[in-house]
Amino acid sequence: MGNNFYVPGFLVSVANAGIKGSEKEDMALIYSETPAVVAGTFTRNQVKAAPVILTARRIKSGLAQAIIVNSGNANACTGLQGKKDAQEMTALVARGLNIPDQLVLVCSTGVIGQPLPMDKVKKGIDQLLKNLTPKGWKEAAKAIMTTDTFPKLVYKEGEIKGIPFKLLGIAKGAGMIRPDMATMLAFFATDIAISPTLLQPLFKEVVSASFNRISVDGDTSTNDTALILANGRAQNPGKTREDFAPFAACLYEAATALAKMIAKDGEGASKLVEVVIQGARSIKEADQIAMTIANSPLVKTAIYGEDANWGRIMAAIGRAGVEIHPEKIDIYFGDICVVKNGLGQGERAEKEAHIYLKNKEVLLKIDLKLGKATTTWYTCDLTEEYIRINATYRS
Amino acid sequence: MGNNFYVPGFLVSVANAGIKGSEKEDMALIYSETPAVVAGTFTRNQVKAAPVILTARRIKSGLAQAIIVNSGNANACTGLQGKKDAQEMTALVARGLNIPDQLVLVCSTGVIGQPLPMDKVKKGIDQLLKNLTPKGWKEAAKAIMTTDTFPKLVYKEGEIKGIPFKLLGIAKGAGMIRPDMATMLAFFATDIAISPTLLQPLFKEVVSASFNRISVDGDTSTNDTALILANGRAQNPGKTREDFAPFAACLYEAATALAKMIAKDGEGASKLVEVVIQGARSIKEADQIAMTIANSPLVKTAIYGEDANWGRIMAAIGRAGVEIHPEKIDIYFGDICVVKNGLGQGERAEKEAHIYLKNKEVLLKIDLKLGKATTTWYTCDLTEEYIRINATYRS
Repeated sequence: MGNNFYVPGFLVSVANAGIKGSEKEDMALIYSETPAVVAGTFTRNQVKAAPVILTARRIKSGLAQAIIVNSGNANACTGLQGKKDAQEMTALVARGLNIPDQLVLVCSTGVIGQPLPMDKVKKGIDQLLKNLTPKGWKEAAKAIMTTDTFPKLVYKEGEIKGIPFKLLGIAKGAGMIRPDMATMLAFFATDIAISPTLLQPLFKEVVSASFNRISVDGDTSTNDTALILANGRAQNPGKTREDFAPFAACLYEAATALAKMIAKDGEGASKLVEVVIQGARSIKEADQIAMTIANSPLVKTAIYGEDANWGRIMAAIGRAGVEIHPEKIDIYFGDICVVKNGLGQGERAEKEAHIYLKNKEVLLKIDLKLGKATTTWYTCDLTEEYIRINATYRS
Repeated sequence: MGNNFYVPGFLVSVANAGIKGSEKEDMALIYSETPAVVAGTFTRNQVKAAPVILTARRIKSGLAQAIIVNSGNANACTGLQGKKDAQEMTALVARGLNIPDQLVLVCSTGVIGQPLPMDKVKKGIDQLLKNLTPKGWKEAAKAIMTTDTFPKLVYKEGEIKGIPFKLLGIAKGAGMIRPDMATMLAFFATDIAISPTLLQPLFKEVVSASFNRISVDGDTSTNDTALILANGRAQNPGKTREDFAPFAACLYEAATALAKMIAKDGEGASKLVEVVIQGARSIKEADQIAMTIANSPLVKTAIYGEDANWGRIMAAIGRAGVEIHPEKIDIYFGDICVVKNGLGQGERAEKEAHIYLKNKEVLLKIDLKLGKATTTWYTCDLTEEYIRINATYRS
């Protein structure tokens, strides 16, 4: 993805504040020249980081103008000092941009339970305020990375009743990824004109159908946040949810693209795995089964080993807490049917599937034959590298 | 554990039928010279292996006399043929022992979805019938192993109103271990005299408090089975549950000892982890939190890395689905308090905890300060070796 994308009215900058103690950028600032309509979704973990609590409260006004982000330290489980630090980050940005504190949001990601190094953070904010530019999005996507191996950026254009709009999104993921948000940050900027009462439910729905359908390891972080700022520069018409259908579709595509990148870049992952459940009684039941498969260490290690070990998939389906009929189930790797009506299709099918599993992106499709509901999840395989990354993360 | 333990009236034997294709024994037969009172618990996975379905049906009579077991093949997802094969295994044993089919139980563990090699199984059964001996329990514990690295055997003696009884148990575990049974087989033989109506609820309760509180990887198998045979040779008195309290205590100790061995021998495990939750509102809530911690890949890799990364523990507690007060929580590694009232206790505590984590058996204690309920779970760390074992299991 190139580096020339921008959305009119938005500026971004990055800084190396030394929070990560490395050469890498670890702070980013996203700024809308005018107050923008905001929507957000947050971790459902009861242990919420200080910036999550502050940002969730502030977006209730429906307006925001800046997002200050740091990686390397989550500012989670940091008590009263953590709350003060999060507030101070927004106050410093607000003063520098000459806007109210209330319009500044804050996100942190990284190690839990250590106080933010505020001296470094302050110097970082000074740098960020000086370097704002319309085209710094790819650098921003890099600056918010923790154990991510590549930056995640998406850019889309669309039209509402002939009026063009732009949408840009960046995200970070890597570990602790599972539904209900992960150690996942995602920021969208768009020039669309939309009311907060339309944007918030629409955004929540899109997040449910994208970021909440990926899983790396079944862990859920304290810091997950997805935010969207819409500054209205496009001057499009539109009052009802139906009017915004083209925008909703565009946002869904962008969010799904970022979600796939996150799954693909799961810690230590060597393969992106698409899990499709068909023939479920309800989407809820389909999601329940897809999640159980996507979180199963035994399924994920088998895919890493390029082993079409469908018995582990059957076992995962059987323990998902959904009533099923094992003797109806079909399982496919790509187009190769390895299980038909609950029975293995023999060594030849498994050998073909073994060859198919050498691909870097693999499809795992299950037909339950119980109803018409369907869902798609994304996950990754589980490798020794995941263990190495997470056993040594802080050392 | 030595090799001279036995329970009066019970005989065992092992055979190398070549199901695993190795030099190792892969079949075992447990035989009670007289019909014994039986109780059992089985996987709650909806995908149940053929032998599980057959054995669960047969124990309803309250009596059994033999258990035929094979490792190397789970006889799961094998359709009608699998059901016939399970039935035939019991029929062959029944004929050889000259007892009714109905009194023979069958258990299988190993790869899912491949037909049982019945030629090999039949030859194995011929050997088993010839080699029955009172003292073959350790060999039997070896023969039922799959990826286990050591045999699991426990022996206890007790008294009911001055009359001595004996209890012997063997088990296998290793992967796919989580509550509601795992790829776990456990067999107990005792000479106690007890009615089926007392034994079944007592056994179920003991299993819930022992085997259902261990977790290796959160996967649940299609084959899990725990069985107990009580042949009455002890001729003890006892009619009420209270009369059998000494036996219940003895069985609980034996089951917990085997459960700990299973957790310690989790695939690739380098450490046994005891997770104690205190101060919960209810045992159910305590179990829910303990299970979430015991299943968290991030917690388990941190323990492998000997990193007192309590932030991951806080995050796991926060996503367990139990209402908590993060600012009340205390976390200990052994006796070392690393979190007090939700706040980290600084680098010195973490360094002490890091040294503590070099032990092979570690205690992780969480006080929620919400109530009086407490629970203890056992799990293991997550290592590269788990990945290697499971990526290459069938190759």
